[in-house]
Amino acid sequence: MKVTVLTGGVGGAKLVLGLTSLLPADRITAIVNTGDDCVHLGLPVSPDIDTLLYTLAGRFDQERGWGRTGETWSFMAALRELGGPGWFNLGDGDLALHVLRLAAFARGDSLSEVTAFFARAFGLAATILPMSDDRVATMIETDEGRLNFQEYFVGRKCAPTLRGVSFAGAEFARPGPGVLDAIAGADRILVAPSNPWLSVDPILAVPGLRDALAAAPAPVIAVSPLIAGRAVKGPTAKLMAELGLPLSNASIANHYAGLIDGLLIDSGDDAEGISIPVARTATLMRSLDDRKRVAGAALDLAGAVAT
Amino acid sequence: MKVTVLTGGVGGAKLVLGLTSLLPADRITAIVNTGDDCVHLGLPVSPDIDTLLYTLAGRFDQERGWGRTGETWSFMAALRELGGPGWFNLGDGDLALHVLRLAAFARGDSLSEVTAFFARAFGLAATILPMSDDRVATMIETDEGRLNFQEYFVGRKCAPTLRGVSFAGAEFARPGPGVLDAIAGADRILVAPSNPWLSVDPILAVPGLRDALAAAPAPVIAVSPLIAGRAVKGPTAKLMAELGLPLSNASIANHYAGLIDGLLIDSGDDAEGISIPVARTATLMRSLDDRKRVAGAALDLAGAVAT
Repeated sequence: MKVTVLTGGVGGAKLVLGLTSLLPADRITAIVNTGDDCVHLGLPVSPDIDTLLYTLAGRFDQERGWGRTGETWSFMAALRELGGPGWFNLGDGDLALHVLRLAAFARGDSLSEVTAFFARAFGLAATILPMSDDRVATMIETDEGRLNFQEYFVGRKCAPTLRGVSFAGAEFARPGPGVLDAIAGADRILVAPSNPWLSVDPILAVPGLRDALAAAPAPVIAVSPLIAGRAVKGPTAKLMAELGLPLSNASIANHYAGLIDGLLIDSGDDAEGISIPVARTATLMRSLDDRKRVAGAALDLAGAVAT
Repeated sequence: MKVTVLTGGVGGAKLVLGLTSLLPADRITAIVNTGDDCVHLGLPVSPDIDTLLYTLAGRFDQERGWGRTGETWSFMAALRELGGPGWFNLGDGDLALHVLRLAAFARGDSLSEVTAFFARAFGLAATILPMSDDRVATMIETDEGRLNFQEYFVGRKCAPTLRGVSFAGAEFARPGPGVLDAIAGADRILVAPSNPWLSVDPILAVPGLRDALAAAPAPVIAVSPLIAGRAVKGPTAKLMAELGLPLSNASIANHYAGLIDGLLIDSGDDAEGISIPVARTATLMRSLDDRKRVAGAALDLAGAVAT
């Protein structure tokens, strides 16, 4: 069985990690959001790809919630002393990925190629595909003006009121190598409990991707990022309120209408107003067992809607 | 009194540091070799400029002989784990300079501008001028083929037999902003005890610089890098032997013929075959007092030949 997951950052990486406990990793393909990617101080940073790499490699710092375990911070200390920008933290070890990516780009390698190189170097058997090798930048329209994703998310900690989201460059972007095949050829497709507007929509904004998902023969199951009307992490609930959307799983189902065949929601939540099949499990993913359970429940729902 | 120093790496930085103990730092200008500069993994590295910055800022790791004090190495560990090149060490704190330089270049700043920015950030009053903002690459012809400076010096630890040295791009390079004025307007000019062929010649290879030095109204004093026919550090003696040159201060004086008005040599050395004024002091610079003494002796010799 081949499983393809559309995923953003931390929550999505947990789901993919759960999947690796349930089936051989070489059957798993992650299509990863790159709308958060930025060039910081000239270094190309791919936060969601790196979060997935670190998570699958057992290097993700779960306590901090980002970056790698055992990290040191000499670079940032030296940078701040020199008057460099201190708002975007880059750990010393983490820099190795950004610098190797810079060097790879300089010799003409694509993001897909350098991502595959990193996955191999970390000994990962899962396939990690950037949604596109072309530049797509998630831009946040706020009451304080237009911000790029990192300015909004890291720099302003999502404080400005969000008015809308757009994906600069998306109209010219092509799906990354293997992305359309991973959707068309999958036996199961999952949409991770990542932020639908900020982390999954950039993937769907790449021309051809939404249509491929809608046309996919495999059942498509989304895992809701909401629990009891709140987001586990990040700005999902605040964003939904600012967009005037009810904080309900029905809003999630509506957002993915025409794309998904089922929605996995938290055990305690109701399915009011949802017209597609729903399954429930405790969707909070703290332990590896939690991740396995959520991944398993999503696959079970996919199996149920497929029959 | 305004003093200008032509300098390469570690030995030159020690001399400049000695000068700062003898006169106000804002009277000192260092014209620094950039022939060792390289782009490693996409990062622009300027070893001699950074050695001077770290030395004057009290951050140079004297025990290791390069890089900065209190350095950590998480970046290199992560880089090696990912299969990146491990032969060229970049410390975590040191990376801040290379990354800020990358960002500065990306927004169109010159090497002179970013060097001045670093000097200010470190609180340095001395003027640090790259010999050129244009790319000049010191290339070593060896019995194993042509190597760039870092491949020869760091990668091969100067093991291949040297056949010659050239400076790629030098014919198109312009002196950095302020460089010709610092030579023409100096009251004293010193040539640091850096390797004449590898560290000072690249400076002299920048069109206009050699002529400016020859025409300078100020006395020009070189400090010999040899002590008892040996080099304190680095490949000077090996290089001289490979070029078929006697390991004598006369070889140094000949090399700078027409440019220098006096040569400072070690107390124990003879001045056989040298036709310009010579002074002696213990030229080994271990302590700050040593650096002051050598700088003072060089300035004294300059004063003597000026009268």
